[in-house]
Parts: sequence; structure tokens; C-alpha cells
Amino acid sequence: MKYIIGNWKANKTLNESLQWIDIFITELHKNRTLKKKIEQEISVVICPSFPHLYPLKQKLEGLRNIFLGAQDISSVEKGIYTGETTALNLQGIAQFAIIGHSERKKNFHENEQMISLKLCLANKYGIKPFYCINNFDDIIPPSIEFICWEPPESISHGDGKGNFKPLSDILNFKKQLNVPNMHFIYGGSVNENNIKEYIKSDEIEGFIIGGASLDPYRFLHIIENS
Amino acid sequence: MKYIIGNWKANKTLNESLQWIDIFITELHKNRTLKKKIEQEISVVICPSFPHLYPLKQKLEGLRNIFLGAQDISSVEKGIYTGETTALNLQGIAQFAIIGHSERKKNFHENEQMISLKLCLANKYGIKPFYCINNFDDIIPPSIEFICWEPPESISHGDGKGNFKPLSDILNFKKQLNVPNMHFIYGGSVNENNIKEYIKSDEIEGFIIGGASLDPYRFLHIIENS
Repeated sequence: MKYIIGNWKANKTLNESLQWIDIFITELHKNRTLKKKIEQEISVVICPSFPHLYPLKQKLEGLRNIFLGAQDISSVEKGIYTGETTALNLQGIAQFAIIGHSERKKNFHENEQMISLKLCLANKYGIKPFYCINNFDDIIPPSIEFICWEPPESISHGDGKGNFKPLSDILNFKKQLNVPNMHFIYGGSVNENNIKEYIKSDEIEGFIIGGASLDPYRFLHIIENS
Repeated sequence: MKYIIGNWKANKTLNESLQWIDIFITELHKNRTLKKKIEQEISVVICPSFPHLYPLKQKLEGLRNIFLGAQDISSVEKGIYTGETTALNLQGIAQFAIIGHSERKKNFHENEQMISLKLCLANKYGIKPFYCINNFDDIIPPSIEFICWEPPESISHGDGKGNFKPLSDILNFKKQLNVPNMHFIYGGSVNENNIKEYIKSDEIEGFIIGGASLDPYRFLHIIENS
């Protein structure tokens, strides 16, 4: 089972999210082979902004192996924290959460202590973390199930122009990381073309897709080529 | 027209939010006088966590003068900012947003520059800010429509035990603030009892309710006593 994760980041109006999911579902109903592929081989995780999770959840009801993910969760459990979105708030809405993304560390003061609290809270409320790392310096808690490597130089800056990382580099990194009990996910300007290269190895068990996930047709193409 | 704003902060599971809104609506249908009061005199603004805005929006359809507010919005407009909830994401879901809340300044590194960006983005995307201040040191941009005074010593710490601020103190503060063109909102452990004191003056045009808004019956009582 491979994981294809769409991280929409801070994009899309409500209408754009609804249009995306309508196209995605319509295309799946048209393409039985692809639908079957998802049901049997590919776990799809869509990560829109917090306010768009629920409308997408309603649309996805009845579809197998397509999940929702939050792009983050709060480091606090509950209480007098105006503006925070907690694991408790997300329970029953999102099955996964991206935790420790480099954009949060860079722009929003996220540190290791906060990330460790986030992981605990995700586990407590039954949300599976996609735990992000940038390099070997990042701490890896032993209980992690999904480890996502996003090398900073390969992350697209919104223009689709991140550095392409050869498959051999990714496999080398994974080997040195030495986490045989974790699912290894790769993220860094993955698109419908370069995924054909990456998919040659069974060592990469999933992909976080940024910019290319914003278009439902491109995202479906990525699943098709996986 | 007075504003009664419920700030749920980082509380409630999805089911708890849905239960709250079901009770709220059921009670309104039972109490025609209260429903009429809201339609004619009281703008109600409910501010749940981001993921619960949409399910509440669906429940509130057709009810007049009851709005949704976000507890915060991002200081970025859109793009590669994993985990941020932007004004663009919220357009069409929330009509209002609390901006500059002291809990965000204290716990989440919010500064004046970020707040000023948030105000611009709220305006750009048609979301009305409830702009929060703590004291006379806070900058007040001229374009503000709703100014919310939450004195730090009166904010409840989740236990309902903030200091009660006498009406005369609030009126004095407003006088010294000298913002005749702005709606003046007060927040600080307001509940179904002390609101009877505050409501004696027309100078306070609304209230942000924290802890007491978490129970739909108490919140309805506050509206009843306003």
C-alpha cells in the first residue's frame, strides 16, 4: 500500500475546494480502473485548510481508501487558546495530520518541544502523524509510523521549481536514516512526470505532493502513475 | 443593535459543537420572543474552531442575524504556508474574525506587524475584524469598525474566575480611548449575571463571551439578559 498525500498549503477558497473535490470524484466514477487502484493499492490523503476539511469529508463519504489530513495541529490540548486548532477539534474530521513541516518551523516559531507535544496529542486523539524531517539533524521519536523526508532544496517555492532529487539520493538518505519500522514518505516537487522515476523503487512508500496536488487532474495523474 | 460574540477558544469536539448548535436552534424555535429579539436587536456571532465553522454554517442557514466568526486569521495571504488558515480560506464561511487576541500575542508570537497584515487581509476578503486591545498602549488603526477591550486582569483563565470590572471603569476607559466612530465591545468574564449590570449603558455595544459561551443555555441566557 502506497500513500499519496496532497498538501494544499494555504490555498483555495471554499468554492475552489468544492470544485476540486467534485472533479476528483466525478473523474473517479468515470475511471473504474483508477478507483479500483485506489481501493486496493493507494491510500489517498487530502490535506486542505482547516475550514475546508468538513465539507470535503461530506463529499468523500462512501469512498474507500480516501482520507483527510490536517496540515498541522496545535501543541495545546484545549482551553483558553484563542485561534488554535487542536487534535480534539479535529477528531472525527481528519484521520491524519502533517506535523513538523519546515514551513511552520521557518515562519511560525515551531520548535522541537512543540512538535513533540503535537505528536503526543495526535496519538492521544487517534490522528496519525505524517512526521516531517528535513535532514539528519532532526530528532526522530521512536513511536513514529510515517516519516516524511522533505529536503529543503527540493521543496517547490510555489512555482513548481524545486530541485529534482534523483531516486538514488532518496534511497541513500533512507538507508542512512535507518528506520526500518517506519513508512518512508518523500516530498519535494513531486509531480505526474517525476513520480514515474520514483515509483520504480518499493523503498519509498508514499509521496507528499504540494503544488501539483492543487489541480485535481494532475493529482489524479500522479495517482495513476504511482 | 448590540453584538453578542461567543469565543469558544480551543474547546469542543465536533460532536460537542454540533450538540451545542442543535440545542441553541431548538431553544430559539421554542422561544419566539428571544428569536425576535435576536432578529431585531442582537447580532449573535459564534466563533468555534476553524474545522467546526462549516458544519455550524450549514445548521444556521435560514436564521437571521446569527453569524459565524473565526478566532483568528493568518497574516499571510496565500501560498506555501502549510497549516495556515487565511482570510481567503474563510471567505463565505465566516463573516467576522477576532484579530489581535491577547492569547495569541502571549502564546503564539503575534506582533503588531502581523496584526496589521491580518487586518488588511480581513478587509480585502470581506471579513469584519473584531480588533482586540488590552490597554492604551495598543495601536488602533483608524479604519477599525469594532474595537474590543479585554483587560488582561478580567479575562477568565478557563475557570470563570476573572476579575469583575465595574461598569464605571469600562465607561471611563472608553471615554479616554476616544474612538467615537468605532463600535465599542467589552470582554472579560462576562456572564448571564453580570451582563445585567453592563447592559444598563448604551455605551457598550457588544460583548465577547468566553467560558460562559461554551454552554448553549448560558449563552442564550446572556442574549436574553442583554
